[in-house]
Amino acid sequence: MSGRVFLIGAGPGDPELMTMRAIRMLREADVVVYDRLVSADILAMSPERALMIPVGKAPKCHTVPQERINDILLEQARAGHRVARLKGGDPMIFGRGSEEAAYLAAHGIAVEYAPGITAAQGASCSTGVPLTHRGLATSVQYVTGHRQADKVLDLDWKRLADPDSTLVVYMGVANIGQIAMGLMTENLPGSTPVLAVGRATTPEERRLVSRLDRVAADVREAKLTAPTLFIIGKVVSLYAEAPLAELVEQVEAHG
Amino acid sequence: MSGRVFLIGAGPGDPELMTMRAIRMLREADVVVYDRLVSADILAMSPERALMIPVGKAPKCHTVPQERINDILLEQARAGHRVARLKGGDPMIFGRGSEEAAYLAAHGIAVEYAPGITAAQGASCSTGVPLTHRGLATSVQYVTGHRQADKVLDLDWKRLADPDSTLVVYMGVANIGQIAMGLMTENLPGSTPVLAVGRATTPEERRLVSRLDRVAADVREAKLTAPTLFIIGKVVSLYAEAPLAELVEQVEAHG
Repeated sequence: MSGRVFLIGAGPGDPELMTMRAIRMLREADVVVYDRLVSADILAMSPERALMIPVGKAPKCHTVPQERINDILLEQARAGHRVARLKGGDPMIFGRGSEEAAYLAAHGIAVEYAPGITAAQGASCSTGVPLTHRGLATSVQYVTGHRQADKVLDLDWKRLADPDSTLVVYMGVANIGQIAMGLMTENLPGSTPVLAVGRATTPEERRLVSRLDRVAADVREAKLTAPTLFIIGKVVSLYAEAPLAELVEQVEAHG
Repeated sequence: MSGRVFLIGAGPGDPELMTMRAIRMLREADVVVYDRLVSADILAMSPERALMIPVGKAPKCHTVPQERINDILLEQARAGHRVARLKGGDPMIFGRGSEEAAYLAAHGIAVEYAPGITAAQGASCSTGVPLTHRGLATSVQYVTGHRQADKVLDLDWKRLADPDSTLVVYMGVANIGQIAMGLMTENLPGSTPVLAVGRATTPEERRLVSRLDRVAADVREAKLTAPTLFIIGKVVSLYAEAPLAELVEQVEAHG
């Protein structure tokens, strides 16, 4: 008798940003197969009896190849287990969750999903910078700035360089100079504000407000490392206007 | 002494898709100011003592003008209350959450956020259609297909008509014909698959798989109404390949 696989979005980092369904599915698991970016606090919610299998992917260093991850999931499900496949963010946005699901479905294994707050949403709610805002951005786009070692980063700069949209770049810290240059070449102004958020919603969160023509230098100087997310566009101007975190701190102190 | 406002994303519909933080903030509220699309099951999680204030927005029928909503939030916070501002989806993606936050911040009221699973993610996890997938879509974009009664829908079709990206249209059911035409004019093939999902993740969820050159007629025939979300792009081809919901049902029946 076959088990099943729960494809679970663990959210951006803060365990409180997990959905109720994600937590329920994790609590029901016999086996937990998890990525490197899932925090210890979240892993600690796994049942004590669960077999824990790390398959952590670091940038440019896939500890376990994708094909092997697929097979681990299949083997564990075929052994009759309820398998929690725990990924950072949302399993349907980057992260190859749907590749695993397709492989499992092709082998007759049922997959159920728990969506997760993706890093863009985590960074947005943490900083108070919205992803859309009337008059500043009528749409939002998520792209990945990471490419495999043997591939070039060939993004469609003309499509991305939209002054009336918010552009969110995942996994872009290594290539942010090239990304900024590509956008400016397609006439996005160098003064376009950029918010870089490292490890959003975790105690190690770091923020850097910059602009397109300076962001590469600023990121280098600040020694921001992966995982760092970039929010590019006029919405970032709201960060300076309303430093919400400080405001909250003031109210806490004087309230 | 001032209260504060919790800007809470209630998620796509299913209460289990709320985050732990959203539920905590709702449980702490003295006053709950909520939109029309927030379900009764979610409202039922409010504390019994809480004052419930509906400000529901229907398409083309803003029950309470935005300026009045802003003032209600300000008045309630100034009265020293903890105010839960409950919105469908994510408060930072469409829905004007950041306009309310900016107004409150300008008046010295602290705002805290709980992100929510947005409708695109709900529909994705409900149907098994990913928002990105290697080889099919390297990015995803959210746009709104709704415009105020006196405005035209002037989307940048050239930017949106990207065969290698997933386009998600919120609030587009009234204008889907115009949207499909605009995309096809910019050379997105008429055969591009489209998934329409009405009331995703609720018991009333409805799905319709179509293609760009037929979707307007199909939506009309199926009498799909708002709120309906459209996922446009090659990722939708995975829906037919892996009818996950049916697969789960089979396993339930025979497992």
